[in-house]
Amino acid sequence: MKTIDDLDTPALAVDLDVMEANLARMQNYCNAHGLGLRPHIKTHKIPALAHQQLALGARGIACQKLGEAEVMADAGIADILIPYNLVGQRKLERLAALARRAHVTVAADSADAARPMEAYLAEQGVTVGVVVELTSELNRCGVTDARAAAALAHEIAAGRGLRFRGVMVYPSSAKSMPLVAETLTALKAEGLDAEIVSGGSTPTAYQSHEFPGLTEIRPGTYIFNDWSYVRQGVCAIEQCALTVIVTVVSTPTPERVIIDGGSKTFSSDMGYPMGRILEYPEAVIYKMSEEHGHLDVSQCPRAPKVGQRLTVIPNHACGTVNMHNTLIGLRGGNVEARWEIAARGRVQ
Amino acid sequence: MKTIDDLDTPALAVDLDVMEANLARMQNYCNAHGLGLRPHIKTHKIPALAHQQLALGARGIACQKLGEAEVMADAGIADILIPYNLVGQRKLERLAALARRAHVTVAADSADAARPMEAYLAEQGVTVGVVVELTSELNRCGVTDARAAAALAHEIAAGRGLRFRGVMVYPSSAKSMPLVAETLTALKAEGLDAEIVSGGSTPTAYQSHEFPGLTEIRPGTYIFNDWSYVRQGVCAIEQCALTVIVTVVSTPTPERVIIDGGSKTFSSDMGYPMGRILEYPEAVIYKMSEEHGHLDVSQCPRAPKVGQRLTVIPNHACGTVNMHNTLIGLRGGNVEARWEIAARGRVQ
Repeated sequence: MKTIDDLDTPALAVDLDVMEANLARMQNYCNAHGLGLRPHIKTHKIPALAHQQLALGARGIACQKLGEAEVMADAGIADILIPYNLVGQRKLERLAALARRAHVTVAADSADAARPMEAYLAEQGVTVGVVVELTSELNRCGVTDARAAAALAHEIAAGRGLRFRGVMVYPSSAKSMPLVAETLTALKAEGLDAEIVSGGSTPTAYQSHEFPGLTEIRPGTYIFNDWSYVRQGVCAIEQCALTVIVTVVSTPTPERVIIDGGSKTFSSDMGYPMGRILEYPEAVIYKMSEEHGHLDVSQCPRAPKVGQRLTVIPNHACGTVNMHNTLIGLRGGNVEARWEIAARGRVQ
Repeated sequence: MKTIDDLDTPALAVDLDVMEANLARMQNYCNAHGLGLRPHIKTHKIPALAHQQLALGARGIACQKLGEAEVMADAGIADILIPYNLVGQRKLERLAALARRAHVTVAADSADAARPMEAYLAEQGVTVGVVVELTSELNRCGVTDARAAAALAHEIAAGRGLRFRGVMVYPSSAKSMPLVAETLTALKAEGLDAEIVSGGSTPTAYQSHEFPGLTEIRPGTYIFNDWSYVRQGVCAIEQCALTVIVTVVSTPTPERVIIDGGSKTFSSDMGYPMGRILEYPEAVIYKMSEEHGHLDVSQCPRAPKVGQRLTVIPNHACGTVNMHNTLIGLRGGNVEARWEIAARGRVQ
């Protein structure tokens, strides 16, 4: 059997025991609180892992891009939420095709987004579920007041091509939930029923039972966790399943060590210092070129040498996975799985 | 014929007229100064574009990763420089295989990197060219003094598996060239001839004739240019060939516009503000989520609307291309080519 030492580097690897514990913990939490779990697959982008999440009890998946949803539908996944406004004629054509082979729900935060979708889908004789997106402290998309959200819901409910299903917010948090509650009240006044109240984010996931009204949550990163979440206190270092195995390629000065992974291996998301080197916790990844990582090892009792392998917990799991074509599954240091990151690069 | 308006978004596109002018300008400069041009394909990662560079007169290509070199060799490209220390048994096996089907030169900056390579290649009956990497103001890899560089060159020249070919530096610049000159003197004293003195970087490329001793340069980004180079005065906006075509998906407030591309479309390289929107030069991309770009349009005379398409010159061409699977070639707004970014994700 191949082991971790047989892998060429940089290698993206997941510790399966840790990952499975992460998956079970979140599912158990949702079960205990009567919450639906709809994992966001943007983190792993691998159909086999989505199937594993469904097998544990997830009610469906979330995909951030239509292209990701197409890959997951190709793999036989039936219940897909795309918490994103789908805008443009080509997107609508693809959405109609997807809706013929999967149970699809999308988000909308404006009539400008919803109306062309309704018109095209009605013409095609297809119906797609819609949740109204509400704003949050993220200040990204989302309707900014309850009355406007209810009006949009009303318009969606009236069309043949769309079916109003409820509301969504990202993240679900103490700050974002008051607007959700106001919107549910406004919907009720309109005679509209929100069968879905969908929240999101890994950092707030285990507070979800404190947010009344939520019917499901869409965490993504919880499957792997990452160093940014350790620093934020969201998880323990032992709950980080994802690592990048790298090789020291140069030690030009006693303080500086260069590894064979840079911004095209880890992404530049979340800046510096980047990640944590398990074998050298005092080492600081202070800079990355595209294919080189620059380490300051001046605080390490002993410095790593050329040829030595290091194990890095990346700052941002989603951004790191997105750089790679393959994820290696390890158990006890043995290679147990090798998955293509099939939905990577499906930016459309 | 398909036009730019038929493309789904986000779409990575190159204006072929601008790209061809960029390619010709650099080749003409090199020809005028008797310099070899060895384009770095890390920017585009597309065999057809490498072939175009070779057809114009490039003497070979540079690849930052062995995996990129394998893709280019698969496409029939014969002369490949990998300006990178190749470390680890699996890398050496792949290098030996590559050297049997292409003319390969690699970098080394230490005996720790060179010795295992020499031993393995000699055992395999294969010889690979080696250039000694010298340090620069980048403080990345590279031998830090001329005497040590000459000693390493001497050791390389003595082995059967390696053939000493010269030196390399990145970038070649007023700061990095003195060490190159000292090293060439030290090599001469050792009776060693540097047939290659390889420099690099697009920003310094057109100063190369001022750096005595250079035999070739390895610019990469010059094929496309990007917004960071416009800001640095390296190129004009009219010389930017690469754009990302995006769609406005949400306008939650009068000041805020959301586009359908974020850090998984543009990369997070080089931070904010990110790039330039051609149709709205006053708009500021002040933040990106993974799949959303956040625009501040408060300084725009008129704000873009949901469904409108925008054309973005990205901050970092290499990082942006690396996010995509496909590059569209446009001429006069018509789709003339569609290339798979074949060497993307070859991080090993």
